[in-house]
Amino acid sequence: MISQLIEKIQKTKAPICVGLDPMLSYIPEHIKERAWGEYGETLKGAAEAVWQYNKEIVDHTYDLIPAVKPQIAMYEQFGIEGLIVYKRTVDYCREKGLTVIGDVKRGDIGSTSAAYAAGHLGRVKVGSQTLSGFDTDFITVNPYLGTDGVKPFVDVCREEDKGLFVLVKTSNPSSGEFQDQLIDGRPLYELVAEKVVEWGDLSMDGTYSNVGAVVGATYPEMSRILRKLMPHTYFLVPGYGAQGGTAEDLKFCFNEDGLGAIVNSSRGIIAAYKQEKYAEFGPEHFGEASRQAVADMVADINRVL
Amino acid sequence: MISQLIEKIQKTKAPICVGLDPMLSYIPEHIKERAWGEYGETLKGAAEAVWQYNKEIVDHTYDLIPAVKPQIAMYEQFGIEGLIVYKRTVDYCREKGLTVIGDVKRGDIGSTSAAYAAGHLGRVKVGSQTLSGFDTDFITVNPYLGTDGVKPFVDVCREEDKGLFVLVKTSNPSSGEFQDQLIDGRPLYELVAEKVVEWGDLSMDGTYSNVGAVVGATYPEMSRILRKLMPHTYFLVPGYGAQGGTAEDLKFCFNEDGLGAIVNSSRGIIAAYKQEKYAEFGPEHFGEASRQAVADMVADINRVL
Repeated sequence: MISQLIEKIQKTKAPICVGLDPMLSYIPEHIKERAWGEYGETLKGAAEAVWQYNKEIVDHTYDLIPAVKPQIAMYEQFGIEGLIVYKRTVDYCREKGLTVIGDVKRGDIGSTSAAYAAGHLGRVKVGSQTLSGFDTDFITVNPYLGTDGVKPFVDVCREEDKGLFVLVKTSNPSSGEFQDQLIDGRPLYELVAEKVVEWGDLSMDGTYSNVGAVVGATYPEMSRILRKLMPHTYFLVPGYGAQGGTAEDLKFCFNEDGLGAIVNSSRGIIAAYKQEKYAEFGPEHFGEASRQAVADMVADINRVL
Repeated sequence: MISQLIEKIQKTKAPICVGLDPMLSYIPEHIKERAWGEYGETLKGAAEAVWQYNKEIVDHTYDLIPAVKPQIAMYEQFGIEGLIVYKRTVDYCREKGLTVIGDVKRGDIGSTSAAYAAGHLGRVKVGSQTLSGFDTDFITVNPYLGTDGVKPFVDVCREEDKGLFVLVKTSNPSSGEFQDQLIDGRPLYELVAEKVVEWGDLSMDGTYSNVGAVVGATYPEMSRILRKLMPHTYFLVPGYGAQGGTAEDLKFCFNEDGLGAIVNSSRGIIAAYKQEKYAEFGPEHFGEASRQAVADMVADINRVL
């Protein structure tokens, strides 16, 4: 699966993914009004607004990018109706040829992780049938429970040619509270990184492994070290743009071959029309604003590579 | 919320919860056949089998227990249809007067955790309306992202009188890989425990906090230390029974007042009819086998308290 993603990155010359994390506050009024008009101020109405918003952004950007990363929490907050639109978004993006990274951050004990892995990446057996729940290409995974909690996800990657990004060093301000704690003089995230390399050896796909790592753009010194520790691990890099990470901060996430990382931007792309820089597009043309923001982000990142 | 749970524990004299983690392999053939007959070997058929199975277990046990803990992964594996039955199970258990602990192990950066918190514990604003997605009483939370990833859950607990159990020391074999690593001579899970106490101070509800901790039954020496470190924190204790934890292992999880812990059993209760001990009930009467297994578990735990 990682080799498919790399191919798309090379074809688009865009090592980025668009974070489809639709907060209602990002969605232009005309879309919400139409959705409330049709379904009322209900969970279904909210989900419909999210869907219309996503669709317009995807329609305006899919030819420029290799991948999207829907954040499932933004859908789950609307309960079942939201999750129906999560699935619709995943399916629509895959039809458009995009790689879909489900940002689900799941992780549990073995048998439970196996159920998550089946539901999001693999298949589940029902009688004589083998069926798919969500069927994303990659998901993000939380490593706190250790190898037996991560291994079922790796197994599915190997069997079904899918991929993971395991949380190593996250982009948020308090990520260091536990992740940076020193163990024999080395931070916990390095220990997690070593395990990710071990897990990754079980599902190689060309030069890189199907088991990637989440490494925040907001901590460039750490990504420099992690890049060396994990030469065959692809990085999913959150934190660019709205969270404060700059293109300069990102360069350590890449290998010398210009590969090795895919940078996510959510708000900076999907709510671009709200920025002064893209205000000329106006809320009616928010999809075009997102397209321009993608082009600008790609240029910004390629500048430092 | 924790005081409501304690009241129910005292009323039932049963410091336990039943883990509604329905694997298809646990479900008696006659239920699956009926569900396949109605909906085919489809995700909807699987979800229907899960629902019929859950309902019979709940109907046979609800008067003996204070709480249930549905593991959302077992529903999520069947996609949307599974999640509809997760919600139906949550709602049905709450109607029956049970406290519902959604075992979701969510956790992300701040704004994303806020969305999960709204969806599972709180409410979400849609236009002028305030609506609920899943509306469980407690959920489990993963702490790997630190305070800004947990705080939004704590805020909702305070505002909506709900509760959490934060993963501190999990019951699985490789939980020690990261959780037991020594930081200045003390294991990571103690550091997490201290943070849980800090977070818990923000949402006290009587003697105990609405912010509890997950502490596995399989590591009794560690639970003894954690019990002292966290005197006002309720423990959700997985690992009893099928995972190897015994009643003797559990006693350190409780305070001297006989409170402070709620012990989960999943397979040992819901698939009791498959054990030799309860074989006499037969698959047709699996609900009665579960009822007997609950009574036996309560007696076993009360023996050591």
